[in-house]
Amino acid sequence: MHMRAQTPQPTFINTLMPVPAKLTTDQGSFTLSSSFTVAAPHFRDERLDAGIGRMLHRLEYQTGVPITKDIQKDAAGAALVVDVQGAGEAVQSIDEDESYSLHVTSSGVNLQAKTVVGALRGMETLLQLVQTDHAGYILPAVSIEDTPRFHWRGLMIDSGRHFEPVPVIERTLDGMAAVKLNVFHWHLSEDQGFRIESKLYPKLAGMGSDGLYYTQEQAKEVVAYARERGIRVVPEFDMPGHSVSWFVGYPDLASGPGPYTVRRVFGISDEAMDPTRDSTYKFLDGFIGEMSTIFPDPYFHIGGDETKGVQWKGNPRIVEFMQKHDMKDPAALQAYFNQRLLKILQKHHKYMIGWDEVLNPALPKDVIIQSWRGTESLAAGAKQGYQGILSAPYYLDAMKPAEQHYLADPLPADSDLTPQQQTLILGGEVCMWGEQLYERTIDSRIWPRTAAMAERFWSPENVRDVSDMYRRLDVMSVRLEAFGLTHLTQEDVGLRALTGTTDIDAMRVFASVLEPVSFHERYQGQHTSQLTPLDHLVDAVRPDPPSRYQMEVLVQAFLKNPAQDGRERQELANNFASWSKAAPDVQRQVSESPLLADAAGRAQQFADLAKIGSEAVKYLSGGNAAPAGWKQSSLAALDAAQKPQGLVRFTVLAPLHDLVNAVQEK
Amino acid sequence: MHMRAQTPQPTFINTLMPVPAKLTTDQGSFTLSSSFTVAAPHFRDERLDAGIGRMLHRLEYQTGVPITKDIQKDAAGAALVVDVQGAGEAVQSIDEDESYSLHVTSSGVNLQAKTVVGALRGMETLLQLVQTDHAGYILPAVSIEDTPRFHWRGLMIDSGRHFEPVPVIERTLDGMAAVKLNVFHWHLSEDQGFRIESKLYPKLAGMGSDGLYYTQEQAKEVVAYARERGIRVVPEFDMPGHSVSWFVGYPDLASGPGPYTVRRVFGISDEAMDPTRDSTYKFLDGFIGEMSTIFPDPYFHIGGDETKGVQWKGNPRIVEFMQKHDMKDPAALQAYFNQRLLKILQKHHKYMIGWDEVLNPALPKDVIIQSWRGTESLAAGAKQGYQGILSAPYYLDAMKPAEQHYLADPLPADSDLTPQQQTLILGGEVCMWGEQLYERTIDSRIWPRTAAMAERFWSPENVRDVSDMYRRLDVMSVRLEAFGLTHLTQEDVGLRALTGTTDIDAMRVFASVLEPVSFHERYQGQHTSQLTPLDHLVDAVRPDPPSRYQMEVLVQAFLKNPAQDGRERQELANNFASWSKAAPDVQRQVSESPLLADAAGRAQQFADLAKIGSEAVKYLSGGNAAPAGWKQSSLAALDAAQKPQGLVRFTVLAPLHDLVNAVQEK
Repeated sequence: MHMRAQTPQPTFINTLMPVPAKLTTDQGSFTLSSSFTVAAPHFRDERLDAGIGRMLHRLEYQTGVPITKDIQKDAAGAALVVDVQGAGEAVQSIDEDESYSLHVTSSGVNLQAKTVVGALRGMETLLQLVQTDHAGYILPAVSIEDTPRFHWRGLMIDSGRHFEPVPVIERTLDGMAAVKLNVFHWHLSEDQGFRIESKLYPKLAGMGSDGLYYTQEQAKEVVAYARERGIRVVPEFDMPGHSVSWFVGYPDLASGPGPYTVRRVFGISDEAMDPTRDSTYKFLDGFIGEMSTIFPDPYFHIGGDETKGVQWKGNPRIVEFMQKHDMKDPAALQAYFNQRLLKILQKHHKYMIGWDEVLNPALPKDVIIQSWRGTESLAAGAKQGYQGILSAPYYLDAMKPAEQHYLADPLPADSDLTPQQQTLILGGEVCMWGEQLYERTIDSRIWPRTAAMAERFWSPENVRDVSDMYRRLDVMSVRLEAFGLTHLTQEDVGLRALTGTTDIDAMRVFASVLEPVSFHERYQGQHTSQLTPLDHLVDAVRPDPPSRYQMEVLVQAFLKNPAQDGRERQELANNFASWSKAAPDVQRQVSESPLLADAAGRAQQFADLAKIGSEAVKYLSGGNAAPAGWKQSSLAALDAAQKPQGLVRFTVLAPLHDLVNAVQEK
Repeated sequence: MHMRAQTPQPTFINTLMPVPAKLTTDQGSFTLSSSFTVAAPHFRDERLDAGIGRMLHRLEYQTGVPITKDIQKDAAGAALVVDVQGAGEAVQSIDEDESYSLHVTSSGVNLQAKTVVGALRGMETLLQLVQTDHAGYILPAVSIEDTPRFHWRGLMIDSGRHFEPVPVIERTLDGMAAVKLNVFHWHLSEDQGFRIESKLYPKLAGMGSDGLYYTQEQAKEVVAYARERGIRVVPEFDMPGHSVSWFVGYPDLASGPGPYTVRRVFGISDEAMDPTRDSTYKFLDGFIGEMSTIFPDPYFHIGGDETKGVQWKGNPRIVEFMQKHDMKDPAALQAYFNQRLLKILQKHHKYMIGWDEVLNPALPKDVIIQSWRGTESLAAGAKQGYQGILSAPYYLDAMKPAEQHYLADPLPADSDLTPQQQTLILGGEVCMWGEQLYERTIDSRIWPRTAAMAERFWSPENVRDVSDMYRRLDVMSVRLEAFGLTHLTQEDVGLRALTGTTDIDAMRVFASVLEPVSFHERYQGQHTSQLTPLDHLVDAVRPDPPSRYQMEVLVQAFLKNPAQDGRERQELANNFASWSKAAPDVQRQVSESPLLADAAGRAQQFADLAKIGSEAVKYLSGGNAAPAGWKQSSLAALDAAQKPQGLVRFTVLAPLHDLVNAVQEK
């Protein structure tokens, strides 16, 4: 570290994501140099050392400044002092202290935290503070006091419907740590696949996974990898429904006779575990005991969703059991199942967590309800005294813009919960269901949108500036690539595969204004099963590409004063011109690739949109009226472009509508 | 499968790489449909089934046509019949039969091979045959009889200097199999790192790897993964030099007193194993025995390169030993070492393979010499009766164009070897040394250029059409992305990291005409050690980007008739215009990023080149003379752009020279 000569004060450019609870900027900055050194004068352990090592490595790659990885004891003379009070919990707890403070002055950086996890959070902030002045890399002088708003900030990955190899999981964990998420919820069993090795019941993965499963060693590696990054791993084994893959090897668990094969189609299945037989619980006792040796987290997710009881109602023995025990519907039988399951979990020192449907007054108040139904369902649980996690507005496969997810709050300002009830809202979880993706496309579905939700879960409730969020999200997106995440590269890969060539300049322009349709629209349009190849245009394009928000902003700015020959007018005109230029090549390439046949209509519409946009800007700029009928035909073309087609939709129709509507007609 | 209606005969577009030994085209084509089925009527084993499964999965993703993975017994009615005679060798042998024949008619596809490996080769060809007509995906009717020209077609990866994680190795193996390479030469120990777990000598990786090593289980997984793809794995443990990492945990192996630390700087080290002590051989006996349980291949690479004997000459005890045994120089002592090592290898049923320096008449004729020195050195070995593999012209870090590698032949037409001696030339090996790359950049160094060399090793000697090679290489490059290889995406990732933004349109244009300088130029310019961050422009850009050959071809075509208003003139003009348009943004972004400071000169030169190119095309097109002095100043600018700077060089200077030289001056 060295003092800087008098230079102009660099502007602090805040690209932090999530935004810290408190930040004040000070005068000056700290200059990064190869004499940078780190001291950890008080507490140290392997996890902290490894975390510091990774941080230094990333700092080095981010700046090109070679930095020693040695960690010294003596704070004197160290550029960065990492002052940690203790290790934190042996198994990271739900209320682990994640707070930290970070102070940068021109003479050095001080990071203080009560726990190693807090220090890890602070180091992510430190890396995000790095900016350039013309001389090199600096950390602007700031004081940050940071602590999360919610304790539970999760991401769920469904490895059941499509298997995700360990490297995908690990780079996702890296990304999660970078945006301060702290729970990896691992959906490990589904109708379509049982994804973890059981030594007690080898036929679970042996017959229920097509050979695609995590060995116990790999699962332990993932748990360790997550812990190193301050992330808990909560496994989910969905029961009694969503469980066909269990029955392939162990048909006796089911409520019907079998035999069973791995289910290929998606949607709610009829099959369910048999809650009436003691052997089911004996099996689960053994299984949960075994899984507890792999997953140390005190929470165990039992799924519990979407069991409609079809197989139960079809089994006379089960019907008789229900009558005998005065259970009026499948929900009552499921409640019985959950109560017996709860005892098993308690025996193995686990708390139960389940989806909405598990909510039942018979369950104790230490059960956590994960709400896929919505804020109201979550609040209803809290009013009954149950802790809850919100997931409904955070479904990535809804293919919604980041801003919509961002503005959905687990605990909205207008919540009618009492302060006491509010404490039961633990946080939120982003959900990445696995029907319509696979290892090559999952990253672009998760990132960067998940970073916006991570901010919602961490930052103060009043951090809600969408424009500023998108500005920082763009920077965050680039940072995430350092982990090998493919969210920004996969689109090009997909376009090359679709066209069979490296010449994708035109297709890139086309793809830049497209995004995948929602899960439901695709599900209806393509009826994907697990075996459907995921290699169409819908798989290449990204949800909420930058074009959407940019075009919206540009058009609103332009419409304020269309007569002005400003930047917005020029950018809009350039945009539409680039579409027009690309359109013929797009149409040719689409016509040459059978894989792109379903995009032919969109390619034609793309040319139409380019023309409409150009004309609208021209009329509005010159203050000229359009010829009679132009508006009607343009709006009709926009309506046509709005209709479902090819499983992709345009991102720019709303602003184009605004443009067309602003034009005067003769 | 179904018969096709009478449609125009599709043109057979040959994008096969490597080109088969014999190919004839027939009338008609086979149409791929979802009723596609496979039969293996004779031999089947797990490896064949898995290979067919992977092939079908890739076919499905390539075409979007869902295909059953069931393999039937009955050839009747099957679209594809895979007719294999037997498993092949239990451990794939150096002369494993890799031949196959592939016949496509309108009614089906027949693949015949003597071995599973042959069938794997044929399935890669089958996938490359898939092309489109306007109705869908077809296989054109062809008859292929294929067999490799050379038995040894390898790729070496140096995991010693920078560690490459298992997923990198595995996707590389996928790429190798796609271009029919059959030897993965794994350089596992270096001064800079010992990369495999030894249970017998745990301090090898324990102290010599910074924690970055392959567990035995992982290594076995890699060997199995390779075998599944018909690839042998030949491990290399470089000795007696290049071995500092061994000495960190076991200093007694060395010829000097120690203690030792992992060597960070590159280049030839002074340290070497002590060949005079029996304990050295005892250690190696144990170690090689242990490694033999992981690597079943009968060849064991002992390195043997670049031992200059500095440490030997500095140790009186060793000097005395040499004098006593009448060894006049370090080479004599190394020959002694190799002879003792050979006995150990023989004990473990291994043949020795080593770099040029191991060549010594005292060694038996079953030793293989891998030549890093060149064709002459290789021929010299053959004349002494030694089998050899050529590597000198196939060093990827020389950053040479694919065409240069491609035209270098292990056994040139003008070779003066006798037919008998020629049989000793086993083939070639591409070498990917690890000084100047890491897991994020290795793919773009290996691919696609390695595909061109794979063709050299497989295809008939007279397949030497550079233009056709580049045409097919571009297609192959896209195919390789399906394995997750990042050779085409990494440049963008690098540019985003360097600029900190997703706005890299201009930088892409800049990067498209740049490539990394050679290993030697970079080594001198940057003196990289293992700890140097590899995050500069040189790390982002790709060797031999398409711009190089394209510009060369374009300029030659244009210069034939500059007055003609043809495609070439227009494309050239567009090219230079796009450079001019990008140049100001490039200069701005370069000036804003300290990581790009070393590229400032290149950014300025880029603008100069754009101007020179535009002006030259303008003068030549119009038949106008340039103003006096234009040529001199333009050539001076080109010369300046030729000078070393920023570790990147322009790919387009030669054709620009031609353009400028063609201009007349007033």
